[in-house]
Amino acid sequence: MGARPIALSAEDLLARYRAVRGLTTALAHPLSDADATLQSMEDASPAKWHLAHTSWFFETFILRDHTTDYSAFDDDYAFLFNSYYEAEGPRHARGQRGLISRPSLDQLLAYRSHVDAAIEVAAGSLNETALGLLELGLHHEQQHQELLLTDIKHLFAQNPLLPVYMPADAVAPPDTALEILWIKGPAGIHPIGHGGAGFAFDCETPRHDALLAPFALASRTVTNGEWIEFIEDGGYAGAQYWLSDGWAWVQGEAIDAPLYWQKDDSGWQRFGLDGLQPVILAEPVTHISLYEADAFASWADAKWSGARLPTEAEWEVMAAALQADGGNQLSKAAAIRPTVSSMPANAGGLSDMFGNVWEWTGSAYRPYPGFRAARGAVGEYNGKFMSGQFVLKGGSCATPRGHMRASYRNFFYPHQRWQFTGLRLARDI
Amino acid sequence: MGARPIALSAEDLLARYRAVRGLTTALAHPLSDADATLQSMEDASPAKWHLAHTSWFFETFILRDHTTDYSAFDDDYAFLFNSYYEAEGPRHARGQRGLISRPSLDQLLAYRSHVDAAIEVAAGSLNETALGLLELGLHHEQQHQELLLTDIKHLFAQNPLLPVYMPADAVAPPDTALEILWIKGPAGIHPIGHGGAGFAFDCETPRHDALLAPFALASRTVTNGEWIEFIEDGGYAGAQYWLSDGWAWVQGEAIDAPLYWQKDDSGWQRFGLDGLQPVILAEPVTHISLYEADAFASWADAKWSGARLPTEAEWEVMAAALQADGGNQLSKAAAIRPTVSSMPANAGGLSDMFGNVWEWTGSAYRPYPGFRAARGAVGEYNGKFMSGQFVLKGGSCATPRGHMRASYRNFFYPHQRWQFTGLRLARDI
Amino acid sequence: MGARPIALSAEDLLARYRAVRGLTTALAHPLSDADATLQSMEDASPAKWHLAHTSWFFETFILRDHTTDYSAFDDDYAFLFNSYYEAEGPRHARGQRGLISRPSLDQLLAYRSHVDAAIEVAAGSLNETALGLLELGLHHEQQHQELLLTDIKHLFAQNPLLPVYMPADAVAPPDTALEILWIKGPAGIHPIGHGGAGFAFDCETPRHDALLAPFALASRTVTNGEWIEFIEDGGYAGAQYWLSDGWAWVQGEAIDAPLYWQKDDSGWQRFGLDGLQPVILAEPVTHISLYEADAFASWADAKWSGARLPTEAEWEVMAAALQADGGNQLSKAAAIRPTVSSMPANAGGLSDMFGNVWEWTGSAYRPYPGFRAARGAVGEYNGKFMSGQFVLKGGSCATPRGHMRASYRNFFYPHQRWQFTGLRLARDI
Amino acid sequence: MGARPIALSAEDLLARYRAVRGLTTALAHPLSDADATLQSMEDASPAKWHLAHTSWFFETFILRDHTTDYSAFDDDYAFLFNSYYEAEGPRHARGQRGLISRPSLDQLLAYRSHVDAAIEVAAGSLNETALGLLELGLHHEQQHQELLLTDIKHLFAQNPLLPVYMPADAVAPPDTALEILWIKGPAGIHPIGHGGAGFAFDCETPRHDALLAPFALASRTVTNGEWIEFIEDGGYAGAQYWLSDGWAWVQGEAIDAPLYWQKDDSGWQRFGLDGLQPVILAEPVTHISLYEADAFASWADAKWSGARLPTEAEWEVMAAALQADGGNQLSKAAAIRPTVSSMPANAGGLSDMFGNVWEWTGSAYRPYPGFRAARGAVGEYNGKFMSGQFVLKGGSCATPRGHMRASYRNFFYPHQRWQFTGLRLARDI
Repeated sequence: MGARPIALSAEDLLARYRAVRGLTTALAHPLSDADATLQSMEDASPAKWHLAHTSWFFETFILRDHTTDYSAFDDDYAFLFNSYYEAEGPRHARGQRGLISRPSLDQLLAYRSHVDAAIEVAAGSLNETALGLLELGLHHEQQHQELLLTDIKHLFAQNPLLPVYMPADAVAPPDTALEILWIKGPAGIHPIGHGGAGFAFDCETPRHDALLAPFALASRTVTNGEWIEFIEDGGYAGAQYWLSDGWAWVQGEAIDAPLYWQKDDSGWQRFGLDGLQPVILAEPVTHISLYEADAFASWADAKWSGARLPTEAEWEVMAAALQADGGNQLSKAAAIRPTVSSMPANAGGLSDMFGNVWEWTGSAYRPYPGFRAARGAVGEYNGKFMSGQFVLKGGSCATPRGHMRASYRNFFYPHQRWQFTGLRLARDI
Repeated sequence: MGARPIALSAEDLLARYRAVRGLTTALAHPLSDADATLQSMEDASPAKWHLAHTSWFFETFILRDHTTDYSAFDDDYAFLFNSYYEAEGPRHARGQRGLISRPSLDQLLAYRSHVDAAIEVAAGSLNETALGLLELGLHHEQQHQELLLTDIKHLFAQNPLLPVYMPADAVAPPDTALEILWIKGPAGIHPIGHGGAGFAFDCETPRHDALLAPFALASRTVTNGEWIEFIEDGGYAGAQYWLSDGWAWVQGEAIDAPLYWQKDDSGWQRFGLDGLQPVILAEPVTHISLYEADAFASWADAKWSGARLPTEAEWEVMAAALQADGGNQLSKAAAIRPTVSSMPANAGGLSDMFGNVWEWTGSAYRPYPGFRAARGAVGEYNGKFMSGQFVLKGGSCATPRGHMRASYRNFFYPHQRWQFTGLRLARDI
Repeated sequence: MGARPIALSAEDLLARYRAVRGLTTALAHPLSDADATLQSMEDASPAKWHLAHTSWFFETFILRDHTTDYSAFDDDYAFLFNSYYEAEGPRHARGQRGLISRPSLDQLLAYRSHVDAAIEVAAGSLNETALGLLELGLHHEQQHQELLLTDIKHLFAQNPLLPVYMPADAVAPPDTALEILWIKGPAGIHPIGHGGAGFAFDCETPRHDALLAPFALASRTVTNGEWIEFIEDGGYAGAQYWLSDGWAWVQGEAIDAPLYWQKDDSGWQRFGLDGLQPVILAEPVTHISLYEADAFASWADAKWSGARLPTEAEWEVMAAALQADGGNQLSKAAAIRPTVSSMPANAGGLSDMFGNVWEWTGSAYRPYPGFRAARGAVGEYNGKFMSGQFVLKGGSCATPRGHMRASYRNFFYPHQRWQFTGLRLARDI
Repeated sequence: MGARPIALSAEDLLARYRAVRGLTTALAHPLSDADATLQSMEDASPAKWHLAHTSWFFETFILRDHTTDYSAFDDDYAFLFNSYYEAEGPRHARGQRGLISRPSLDQLLAYRSHVDAAIEVAAGSLNETALGLLELGLHHEQQHQELLLTDIKHLFAQNPLLPVYMPADAVAPPDTALEILWIKGPAGIHPIGHGGAGFAFDCETPRHDALLAPFALASRTVTNGEWIEFIEDGGYAGAQYWLSDGWAWVQGEAIDAPLYWQKDDSGWQRFGLDGLQPVILAEPVTHISLYEADAFASWADAKWSGARLPTEAEWEVMAAALQADGGNQLSKAAAIRPTVSSMPANAGGLSDMFGNVWEWTGSAYRPYPGFRAARGAVGEYNGKFMSGQFVLKGGSCATPRGHMRASYRNFFYPHQRWQFTGLRLARDI
């Protein structure tokens, strides 16, 4: 990331600052001090940490570096709430984040208010660099909003009592999924990546040409019902559909269903922010790893006469003309969950390309031709994660509305699945 | 353990019940919901867990089993707060205890009140078996009081901010330790173990004869000052003084001082319930493992012309005539810590045999001749831990006053040191 | 892989069979029964295993499946010497391969002879499918020849006595490396992958168009002298040049130099098949991981004003016109090692694109557009490894001459470095 | 250990030296170079290592230290073949012993001959200290003879082909076990440990009084048939009979029978030095851990109205008058195995106290009152292992005849069971 051409005025940025910061605090509202303190695995962080780390970002890169008279809320926080910025000095070990009962949730909410007040004062006199960092900080905070929700979901799933983050509205979902149509994509050379005005992370640049072979994309993502077919057809029972690393993972971790699924006498249940609920067949499957997505595609390839994961470029070219801020994305604190895809508004016939579930692609997360990491501490942000991970596109129901772009590159290791991850198939034509 | 001959009336027991239960709640008073939720290592438990598990004990073995109309506070608690009683059914994995943010601290304090109220009602009509279990439950809870304090200390030590559980009174300690005298013990056959009236755990029985070779016991425990001599003389730097397993532990864990010690420009500091404070040379060393105690004894053997760990029988015979409820033991919530030994009141010249620090013995924790485990679920309590552990005697500053006996057998693995563990040397004569 | 269009007659194939099989046996000649039995890590296999597994391949897929009267040499061998062909049934755990002292080396050489004799008899009457499998088996065996050498090297490196596989000829190497020139590559659309006649593994297909941005390739690979500059400039001492996973690997494994390097009073030494020898500054660096290659490229990018890893497509397009069977490749059992690059014979100015050291690319090992795995057990060969690994090109001094192609895709995990791995830099222009 | 009062003349010692050294070589005779090189787990060592380490002992502590003109066979061997003598300097990591294909078996047999020849020359002029060390070295080598056999057995058990070390004589064993009689022991004070003339390890000293409560010892060890009853009665299926650490071991390692047992359609089979053979019901059970022995005793206590493990002192007092060199012990290289106990020759009615299987006691391996470790490097031998292990008594079918004494203290961790370990029950009376 780094300073992008600024499209927003300081005033507009401040308005967005208030909205984004307010949503984060609202997301933490249902949480007790204890809820917000715990860390359920090394991949996740405590909610308190998300609240504080996002504030530390503004405090460090703007207030400390770009204002003259700011005094830190607490000098110890830089050590506690730095994440992976090696250039910013030593930091608390990631796996130890969940052992910090103090400062309390209330103290960290006070820290947030302290930083917010200082930003309000400073906003009018920030230079362009600082405004760029402010915008960056908001996008950074939106990423942590999604993680806060998925980390809390993971934490609550470890509690045998399966607590409810927030009850869901009782809305009867449609009971059948749309049929899959295969939407033909444009072969040949097409530009992908970010260019022009507007914010983007450094890894989305430079905009460059990609060459596509003839392909089609499925009109919707894979559903829970289809996933149960895969299970019942022995999808998890043998090596044949799996990448070698994936099969080792299945066996080592005794995987036999998506994360948060359990089966009882009444059938498959899934745990969510709204507690334990029946699996809805027509809803998109979520909380699957890349290994599972790939195995499903291999199974579907045999069963449906052609299927594979899309590449990042295929997905992005198809999404380029669609509204990135539409669909099922995060707008307020709620028991968010994927919903059944409805007929797409767009001419192309693709449902829910944005929102609902992140879509695994078959593309490794590697630098674009000509990529240069942004300078300085913030430049550590993306480039250094470019090994071993796969790209996901489109955002999910937990992605803050306004955060998404067609060029957005999310990335996770192939075994990770505590995000709202799903898949949309592609095929050669 | 199991029903011991009851020395106390139901009324006296109820009075003790109120005192013990009240102290536990008082110990938790300085803790926030988050403090009480965290588990810093698998050996430790969250304070909430201690509060609830001790209540579950009374609820299960007395209210459920020995009253007719009790209804459980919450049916899920049996799963969450059983510890290791296999006969009581499945239970929550020990290493997962720190992922339970709900029920909250307040809910568990309400659980305590619920159980206490029911015990108050039931106490008058309990039969002898139930009264025996009630007394057992109090001793059990006292054990957890000590663990609650040592577990919180361990948790706070993981926090880079080193929070203070409670500030200590500013009392200037004596600056010199008493000289060590070697107090001669009685060789020959002597009875040890528990017999007669009064409560004891099953592992203390039966009372039986032990045969002692001529020996002497040091008049006081080893001090911090002596430990620093050991460090400075290369005690941790080479294998020569160490048991083979101990040396592997030193190297594997990079051990170079007692737990909670750190060295800075002003010298050795130690973390305690009162925060980070200077190491007082005249105070007894604490938070050492059996491996360290044994290595120190080997070093002292060479340096002081004769030293070794005492056996359990030697210690117990020497302590038999002393007051078990004297000295530095736990009476109220406070920043408890070991204190400098003063001239012993007892004729024999042995300081602080009870209280201050647990004293490692060289005796493996194994059954006494003729030992039979108590029947039923509570019988799992002690016997099944009789491999790989060593006996400690005498209690510590964190042991509730009234809990200790000469025959008391505490036991830990040789690498464990988060209790207030220390040592008193013995020698052959 | 799978049956490729056959370019070779049965007679020619048989001649190649004799040559390839003979070379494998010759490579094992310096080894004792014990040498050939040991496995030094899970990534490696015993030499006996290589000898037997390659024979099992011919026995199973040709003699068992395509001849009528063959009887297996030993029915237990299928279990012992299957590698990862899930479809071929259960097999001995990879990590346990080094615990099989029997059958002995002599028995396995007899097994080889038994299979060879049967192939000689059968060769004349094999159908096209079987001949395709025979050719496949030879390429498969050539891969194991390279592994046999690198696995023995790794094994001998674990022995404190550092035994010599074979003494090297005492040839004085040139003492200076060629200067690096930046050879401009052709931007635009170019075909890569395998097409037309001749053997290739399935992962090299289909031939397809790739789009290249303007770039240049270094005329030679990075040398030991340049690597020492990287070391001395703190290359391994801080996170700045490293991928995040790479830095974790450096710290976790205490990496501070290429594999097999050690420093003594006379400077850097490296262990090789010829024993411990001084590092020659002008020789290509080898036994580096992708993480190290990437970190070096980041360092060189800062120091040399532009450097990065090449992509697979860039490398392949540049190599397309070069002789794939030239340079320093394996022809006979010898103490093979990389050699100093000399002026390239080719017009383009690129030294040692084939042979000497495998060249890491920045391309993840993923399927080509339109890729379909070969059918049946042999189809498991390549496709299932397409996650988490990176592509290497060009072969090494341990690659059997005749095995290499521009389209050849070797692949390893980014931390692996016991192969003869090196790097050639590229840059954007 | 250390120099014990010498009972044997130099001539007698030399005769014993030849016999012991010859037996070791004979035990290695059925092994190939590869067999002798492998290490199947960290607890075990390669046969080559046993051959060399025992020679290194004589070379170092006698030839180097007590002769004037000896030159080492190979200066590297001190590093390779030192075991745990910290005082003798750095040594090869235990877990890496199995990666040393060179020196070869033949070279190490030559090393043995070289040392033997030097001892023959030196024997006549050794002083008393050296003769003491020579005797010590022979007892040390006898220990390694037993380990060589049990380590080879463990290694061969890892090979799916289950190779035979040596075929057994086909002798039909008796098909019924003797009835168990409970032989009453003498309560009161009795001396145990080694005193007087003759060799013993330091840990057997000093001879001292032990106090025994009334007890009886079973006339024979537990049989395979009784063990199958335990299995079929759910012995391994629930926690009730197990020490807590033992139950964790059962679950963690999926233990459900003694080591080397497997069940097929024809019933229980056991692997031995004579290959896979049916379990003979009347034979003593062997290859059980202390945890299993203790669980069996708890089961038998419930079923047989009284049973527990004997203490070391009980066992030793009962064995004091018996012939230590009788019974089923190792005399020559053979497919040794436990045999069915026959009517005891001794008046007391105790079968097979010596030989057949090692008998687990319930006594922790701790120092005797007044114990002092021997001085110098050899003094590291026993004392430093005195934590976490249990004492076994009596020797086994793999113990060299002449090595055993009533005071002999063997010791292993409670989970270890690759030795010929069994149990004899005791009970309180």
